Amino acid sequence: MSHELFMRKALEEAAFAAEEGEIPVGVLITCKGKIIARAHNQTERLQDVTAHAEMIAITMATAALGGKYLNECTLYVTLEPCTMCAGAIAWAQLGELVYGASDPQRGYKRLSPPVLHPRTKVTGGILETECSQLVKKFFQEKR
Amino acid sequence: MSHELFMRKALEEAAFAAEEGEIPVGVLITCKGKIIARAHNQTERLQDVTAHAEMIAITMATAALGGKYLNECTLYVTLEPCTMCAGAIAWAQLGELVYGASDPQRGYKRLSPPVLHPRTKVTGGILETECSQLVKKFFQEKR
Repeated sequence: MSHELFMRKALEEAAFAAEEGEIPVGVLITCKGKIIARAHNQTERLQDVTAHAEMIAITMATAALGGKYLNECTLYVTLEPCTMCAGAIAWAQLGELVYGASDPQRGYKRLSPPVLHPRTKVTGGILETECSQLVKKFFQEKR
Repeated sequence: MSHELFMRKALEEAAFAAEEGEIPVGVLITCKGKIIARAHNQTERLQDVTAHAEMIAITMATAALGGKYLNECTLYVTLEPCTMCAGAIAWAQLGELVYGASDPQRGYKRLSPPVLHPRTKVTGGILETECSQLVKKFFQEKR
């Protein structure tokens, strides 16, 4: 239940991205049940490929905590993270990753050997339909 | 020859990192033979796992060029990029990657399917001994 609650807030962030013409991906990071970071994709606004929602939120969360590791945190993201973001999640030794829609083309799950830290707990498919619909709708309107 | 010239400057950046107690990795980005970005690892100073030299330099280079793609650029890095940085290099559609020392444990080359953009030209082993010695020396002094 709480996974869905936080994923709804990540979806709100993704909707902000869509309004700004960004690929709609949103992220929320919690630590011991408290929200410490929220962000959405800003690659177009900043003209910077590194400005994915996960990257921005990880930087925010480590600033909030005053340390580089997120082993007591949960990161909620509407779309399965890409190679870059999974690499950052690994370095942060994230406690738990919860994502919405899968991304078979760009997602980190394709990669081998596995890229996440072995202790990171992963749950996929939370509000999957809503998360993937948001991305599909965005690209349909772009065409 | 010019690869070595630019790699020497990346090594200077790596040496700055070492002086600051950071894992010594340095990066230089050139566009049409002109240096447009240089950076070194700042993960300790910023307490941010995303602050690898490559990530900082990619953000700097896209700001300098006013666009997100680095297809006409060459990125020189003293150490083979990690998963995160390789993912960023792929999104940036980098023209050419030149690295010094290999990183069999953390480097992107372990990963399959390949993570870089198919058009990115890759050259490894430029000033390899100096690049790897800098990292080895750093960890020896840390112990």
